[in-house]
Amino acid sequence: MPTWLLLNGPNLNMLGQRDRSQYGSETLPEIEAMVQSIAEANGITLAKCQSNHEGVLIDWLQQGQQYDGIIFNPGGYSHTSIAIRDAIASIDTPVIEVHLSNIHNRESFRHHSYVSAVASGQIVGLGALSYKLAAYALLEKM
Amino acid sequence: MPTWLLLNGPNLNMLGQRDRSQYGSETLPEIEAMVQSIAEANGITLAKCQSNHEGVLIDWLQQGQQYDGIIFNPGGYSHTSIAIRDAIASIDTPVIEVHLSNIHNRESFRHHSYVSAVASGQIVGLGALSYKLAAYALLEKM
Amino acid sequence: MPTWLLLNGPNLNMLGQRDRSQYGSETLPEIEAMVQSIAEANGITLAKCQSNHEGVLIDWLQQGQQYDGIIFNPGGYSHTSIAIRDAIASIDTPVIEVHLSNIHNRESFRHHSYVSAVASGQIVGLGALSYKLAAYALLEKM
Amino acid sequence: MPTWLLLNGPNLNMLGQRDRSQYGSETLPEIEAMVQSIAEANGITLAKCQSNHEGVLIDWLQQGQQYDGIIFNPGGYSHTSIAIRDAIASIDTPVIEVHLSNIHNRESFRHHSYVSAVASGQIVGLGALSYKLAAYALLEKM
Amino acid sequence: MPTWLLLNGPNLNMLGQRDRSQYGSETLPEIEAMVQSIAEANGITLAKCQSNHEGVLIDWLQQGQQYDGIIFNPGGYSHTSIAIRDAIASIDTPVIEVHLSNIHNRESFRHHSYVSAVASGQIVGLGALSYKLAAYALLEKM
Amino acid sequence: MPTWLLLNGPNLNMLGQRDRSQYGSETLPEIEAMVQSIAEANGITLAKCQSNHEGVLIDWLQQGQQYDGIIFNPGGYSHTSIAIRDAIASIDTPVIEVHLSNIHNRESFRHHSYVSAVASGQIVGLGALSYKLAAYALLEKM
Amino acid sequence: MPTWLLLNGPNLNMLGQRDRSQYGSETLPEIEAMVQSIAEANGITLAKCQSNHEGVLIDWLQQGQQYDGIIFNPGGYSHTSIAIRDAIASIDTPVIEVHLSNIHNRESFRHHSYVSAVASGQIVGLGALSYKLAAYALLEKM
Amino acid sequence: MPTWLLLNGPNLNMLGQRDRSQYGSETLPEIEAMVQSIAEANGITLAKCQSNHEGVLIDWLQQGQQYDGIIFNPGGYSHTSIAIRDAIASIDTPVIEVHLSNIHNRESFRHHSYVSAVASGQIVGLGALSYKLAAYALLEKM
Amino acid sequence: MPTWLLLNGPNLNMLGQRDRSQYGSETLPEIEAMVQSIAEANGITLAKCQSNHEGVLIDWLQQGQQYDGIIFNPGGYSHTSIAIRDAIASIDTPVIEVHLSNIHNRESFRHHSYVSAVASGQIVGLGALSYKLAAYALLEKM
Amino acid sequence: MPTWLLLNGPNLNMLGQRDRSQYGSETLPEIEAMVQSIAEANGITLAKCQSNHEGVLIDWLQQGQQYDGIIFNPGGYSHTSIAIRDAIASIDTPVIEVHLSNIHNRESFRHHSYVSAVASGQIVGLGALSYKLAAYALLEKM
Amino acid sequence: MPTWLLLNGPNLNMLGQRDRSQYGSETLPEIEAMVQSIAEANGITLAKCQSNHEGVLIDWLQQGQQYDGIIFNPGGYSHTSIAIRDAIASIDTPVIEVHLSNIHNRESFRHHSYVSAVASGQIVGLGALSYKLAAYALLEKM
Amino acid sequence: MPTWLLLNGPNLNMLGQRDRSQYGSETLPEIEAMVQSIAEANGITLAKCQSNHEGVLIDWLQQGQQYDGIIFNPGGYSHTSIAIRDAIASIDTPVIEVHLSNIHNRESFRHHSYVSAVASGQIVGLGALSYKLAAYALLEKM
Repeated sequence: MPTWLLLNGPNLNMLGQRDRSQYGSETLPEIEAMVQSIAEANGITLAKCQSNHEGVLIDWLQQGQQYDGIIFNPGGYSHTSIAIRDAIASIDTPVIEVHLSNIHNRESFRHHSYVSAVASGQIVGLGALSYKLAAYALLEKM
Repeated sequence: MPTWLLLNGPNLNMLGQRDRSQYGSETLPEIEAMVQSIAEANGITLAKCQSNHEGVLIDWLQQGQQYDGIIFNPGGYSHTSIAIRDAIASIDTPVIEVHLSNIHNRESFRHHSYVSAVASGQIVGLGALSYKLAAYALLEKM
Repeated sequence: MPTWLLLNGPNLNMLGQRDRSQYGSETLPEIEAMVQSIAEANGITLAKCQSNHEGVLIDWLQQGQQYDGIIFNPGGYSHTSIAIRDAIASIDTPVIEVHLSNIHNRESFRHHSYVSAVASGQIVGLGALSYKLAAYALLEKM
Repeated sequence: MPTWLLLNGPNLNMLGQRDRSQYGSETLPEIEAMVQSIAEANGITLAKCQSNHEGVLIDWLQQGQQYDGIIFNPGGYSHTSIAIRDAIASIDTPVIEVHLSNIHNRESFRHHSYVSAVASGQIVGLGALSYKLAAYALLEKM
Repeated sequence: MPTWLLLNGPNLNMLGQRDRSQYGSETLPEIEAMVQSIAEANGITLAKCQSNHEGVLIDWLQQGQQYDGIIFNPGGYSHTSIAIRDAIASIDTPVIEVHLSNIHNRESFRHHSYVSAVASGQIVGLGALSYKLAAYALLEKM
Repeated sequence: MPTWLLLNGPNLNMLGQRDRSQYGSETLPEIEAMVQSIAEANGITLAKCQSNHEGVLIDWLQQGQQYDGIIFNPGGYSHTSIAIRDAIASIDTPVIEVHLSNIHNRESFRHHSYVSAVASGQIVGLGALSYKLAAYALLEKM
Repeated sequence: MPTWLLLNGPNLNMLGQRDRSQYGSETLPEIEAMVQSIAEANGITLAKCQSNHEGVLIDWLQQGQQYDGIIFNPGGYSHTSIAIRDAIASIDTPVIEVHLSNIHNRESFRHHSYVSAVASGQIVGLGALSYKLAAYALLEKM
Repeated sequence: MPTWLLLNGPNLNMLGQRDRSQYGSETLPEIEAMVQSIAEANGITLAKCQSNHEGVLIDWLQQGQQYDGIIFNPGGYSHTSIAIRDAIASIDTPVIEVHLSNIHNRESFRHHSYVSAVASGQIVGLGALSYKLAAYALLEKM
Repeated sequence: MPTWLLLNGPNLNMLGQRDRSQYGSETLPEIEAMVQSIAEANGITLAKCQSNHEGVLIDWLQQGQQYDGIIFNPGGYSHTSIAIRDAIASIDTPVIEVHLSNIHNRESFRHHSYVSAVASGQIVGLGALSYKLAAYALLEKM
Repeated sequence: MPTWLLLNGPNLNMLGQRDRSQYGSETLPEIEAMVQSIAEANGITLAKCQSNHEGVLIDWLQQGQQYDGIIFNPGGYSHTSIAIRDAIASIDTPVIEVHLSNIHNRESFRHHSYVSAVASGQIVGLGALSYKLAAYALLEKM
Repeated sequence: MPTWLLLNGPNLNMLGQRDRSQYGSETLPEIEAMVQSIAEANGITLAKCQSNHEGVLIDWLQQGQQYDGIIFNPGGYSHTSIAIRDAIASIDTPVIEVHLSNIHNRESFRHHSYVSAVASGQIVGLGALSYKLAAYALLEKM
Repeated sequence: MPTWLLLNGPNLNMLGQRDRSQYGSETLPEIEAMVQSIAEANGITLAKCQSNHEGVLIDWLQQGQQYDGIIFNPGGYSHTSIAIRDAIASIDTPVIEVHLSNIHNRESFRHHSYVSAVASGQIVGLGALSYKLAAYALLEKM
């Protein structure tokens, strides 16, 4: 039975509590439930993890072999973590990078993501819909 | 009856003929047909345009009021055209920016898109699937 | 009988429709009429052109020999077009560069204009008044 | 009775004596007289000051509340003085920044003016005519 | 009863052992005791944490709602962590950023702190006194 | 009897009049009175000076030998004056640099202060409280 | 029968009229005739195009399959057009980039050409002779 | 009895599984065994740790006092971690920085290592041999 | 009778008091006396001025017509003052720029002098001897 | 009898031995013979020199007065030698700069040539043909 | 019988005479003798060369085919010589780059070495031991 | 008997032949004779060398111990040679760097000299007089 990993980086557990004009009003559990329902409807198991720890995210990514696809929002680590980039590069599982907000019209230090060059694709700026489209992308790629 | 615009910039008429490892083997008519079938299935009319001319693309974008959504691959103009950016900023229609290839693991001059900051969102690096997801995004936003 | 050219670049046909806090509420026809009335009052014929096409703007500028003065708002091409700069440099007619908004307190990519170094002068940030002053400048220079 | 301030920064007292191909042959008193005659013809009192001292210029600008408009050529301080910028930002009087020479085709360190972002507008490169247009601009804005 | 959090980042547990000319001779327990005595004298409970783990620091900051004020020395993460910055931005509790050494006369990579823009204020370069003043600042702000 | 110098740079005489959301509503005399009362309570004489003139500030700093401590807000000169930096470096009196606003979340040209590297410490972004803490810092250092 | 394309970009129709010390005194028809005579002497048909429109140049380049060689002076678009670069990259026909003037001892923004990396070679700074050598180059490569 | 620490950063547990042309075919246990055999042959105990967590690496480095030498491959943290640099600077134990691949002919963001300036030396690009030489270096330094 | 001006900028009145390893032990009066004795021995009158005020230095330089040569140490203004540069450019009198310390092996912000490009020459890093050689230079140039 | 100099810089003696996909398979003697036959056919004597020594190349260039034209491939010194640039600038003989490979699609440090601005022209990226065209260029210029 | 080349660049003949805290007290003959004894003990002939001439170093490197390994300290040319880099790239012999001092904690212009990307590996900052390890590296690679 | 070295770098043997408006009309033998007469008048022997070879200049500088002072014009190597800088740093003899032209108002790549930071002082822009003053400087320093 195919399995996906839904991986969320630092501060995404705060969704719906912090700046809603930037990130939308949905909470992380709501987003996870939305992805889960798409997965289940397609006979796919969904593993979920949110962590504020760069190392924990790397640990999960290294287990990527066990998954058929990964939806990953690296949060603030997108812009600073070469170690996460290397973890993605070390596995063959397709990784879809998602961002809730449009990182390209925020501070300039958010315009570059170390993850992008090694991800299969990016979906950016569409709020919770970004996750939904990422799930569709994995479905199409399987 | 709702209408979408599928707008493609310079050299996208060459798809399927130039570097396939970079852009995939689908031709532009095939991609247009794929989007059209999604549109039709949802009762939406699709207007289509491909042009190598920056000015023509701006002319079409300025007619954006007539559309309920725009899927736009600005091609090489993504990285150089402030005039196209301004055209998008002058209309209220949601614009989804798509790229076939992963612009973030190509030459550094392709990493920045002037369009991104004013687009509703970006879908990057997923080949023809990028267009499909953009159509889904517009459906969700309507 | 002396003749002027009033040349407007991309998106200026959208004036009065897009972000009014940035560009003011006057429409392009209103601005053109304002300049025309100054010209007529001084026995000057006014040619007018607005285009979103970089090449069309260059075509007009190359006909500059036929004019005694040019008022030019290059819009978004100000910041990216070396070809327009070269067209201005290839004629002897005085060119007054105008901008409606204060390009110096907007995004940093709008701070530099390739046109400025080859224009006779710049009038920036005064809204529709920028055009009026440009007309006065041409009158003084004749 | 309305009052304007005509404020000139460092080295502008040398006008007509230093490089005339760059700055024109008019002297500062001639320019001041030109502005004064426009002011008087419109029932406006003109206060005048030229100083080589950054602090003196700031002192005058801070008195800006007493004026209905300021025409200001900050000279060499344009490119280096954040303190002058702050002084302009601290008053509500409209300030028109003028430059005799085209600062955009001179050394690159003259291309950026700290004053521009907080001025109402800029008139650049038209010689003594720059001042005249600034006066017209203030008239229109009253 | 009001509560503060005293949060110290990587390597601050080494205080008093490493380069004393740079960081002073006080140990972290001594600094914590100093802040605690100020807190107690004002009827405030003090929570304390030092961690070398970026994620742990974020976890604590996200609990910021429970505190009335946070004194935070982000150590080496000041200059590299956007994730910590986002954590601070996601809470409303005032955060005072402190640094023992004068980060502005050390290596250039220490001159910029991602934390500064979202902190309530910074106190820099005053050794253990920096913490004391931060406590006074919180007292004044309550 | 010990003496302090409270030195304020350009435009700080405008406090309470200009942008209050940025600088607070206190006037300079109010801030000076606040510092004076702390000084007097500790048997310290306070000399005060505000000037818009870079040279005047340097003149005062060079008299630094006569003071036991200096509280200095260099205003806009913080970011541009090497001469002021050199004046501070030429005396042994401790200088505490203060800023009312958080210079790190304003324009990028305000992020760097030439003064910081030679000051004893910086207190930034806490409004009038910045001055109060600076006074406490001097008390602790005596 | 083999065919070449001689393609000239913006403002090259002005040759012989604008700054002759920079570009020489030959007109574009004279240069075209010179290349044509070389082509004819070698049994080659020559197609010619000059356009100020970036899009028109791309349209012609995309027809490159029909030619055995292209001599291309991109003029001002050399330094700004990624779209033209992509058009050249999409065809297999050898393209020789030529410049009349020595772009390397002019303004720094002319030192880089986006076209160079995808052209077969560059011939720069030799005036009309640049075109002649480009023709020789194509002859040798056939 | 002397003791060494062999410390490996993020993703080095993946050795032999990910891109072998870049990192060689040896696994981390094989490399650890190789260093251990050198250590044992010289009467030295070897402590070993691999972690993907920046904080864990810092925790180990702070225990550096207990070791007579440290062989450290910081992996992706080499290029981003000032906190690790500070940890090394806070201990006196010699640290030899090693890299399997030649970081200088990879992406430019890998060319700079924050660790290098505070390490005793660097051995780069020699594959598993880099570790062996690092062990020899420690032997020579004891 | 010929006259020279010996002009010294900010903080040079502190010579002999501040960091002697950087600037030497001679005081400004001693240096002025040294130059005066050379001048007198050659029948030249010496005018002297030291000021911490940028504007005062400009005022003096503008009187340059009255002198046959100027020896000028601009101190900290060397690196920041375009206004002083413009003042020198506005007179014909030869100006020799001198620096006591070797500005090229100090902080990078001291490596560039705006004055250098418009001075007749520079004598740098030789302590008080720099002034002496400047006097010799003026003697040779007369 | 006219004379040319064919001057080749460092590592060009290795041609045909090192990376042939980059530089072609021809050896330097073969290239020299090709140029020599063109020279002889036109009654021109050819002097030849290859050296790995920057100083030797300068020595030869300084003898440029004795030649009617110079074909020069500066190899790796193109990008680093101001001294070679100065040598070319000190003679009147036309110098054609040639490069075998397309320096513009290699490492970025090869994109800029100090020689280009002072050479008569550049012929780049056409392999051994670059030399042949340079010879034709000299013939045309005589 | 295998042969190695020990190649030392500019100023390394001064070892033991110049700044010993930076480079250690060993002289070049001592280092050469140390490497020679390792070579001899392994039946390897050692060729030695030290030169201050970039061209001489290139000449030797081009003879690299004759050697089974090269130990190379490029000294000051590390940071400036593309020609040396090209020479190394043109041979197949493994080259180990060594540096006595830690180039990464010295002036920033020493942080980048053009040689590193084409060398087999680098050993940096370990004094004379760097050479010894380089010899071990060659032994392992044979 | 004291001895000086007068060392001239690349292209200085061309003095009086190349661009006289830049370098003056004196030849190198004339300058050498001028310095020699000053030396002889003070009982000093003068050694002279001009070379276009970086390595030769280093060889001479390394013999610096034999001289009591060195006057050195590094020509084009000033801006590119770290090896020459290292040679100067390895000797104790005072080195006066001289430049005939004002390197600060020429191309920006001439504004920085690697030699300056390690020279005793610089004398720049005074033509042949620069050498004379350098000789005076050495006399004073003995």
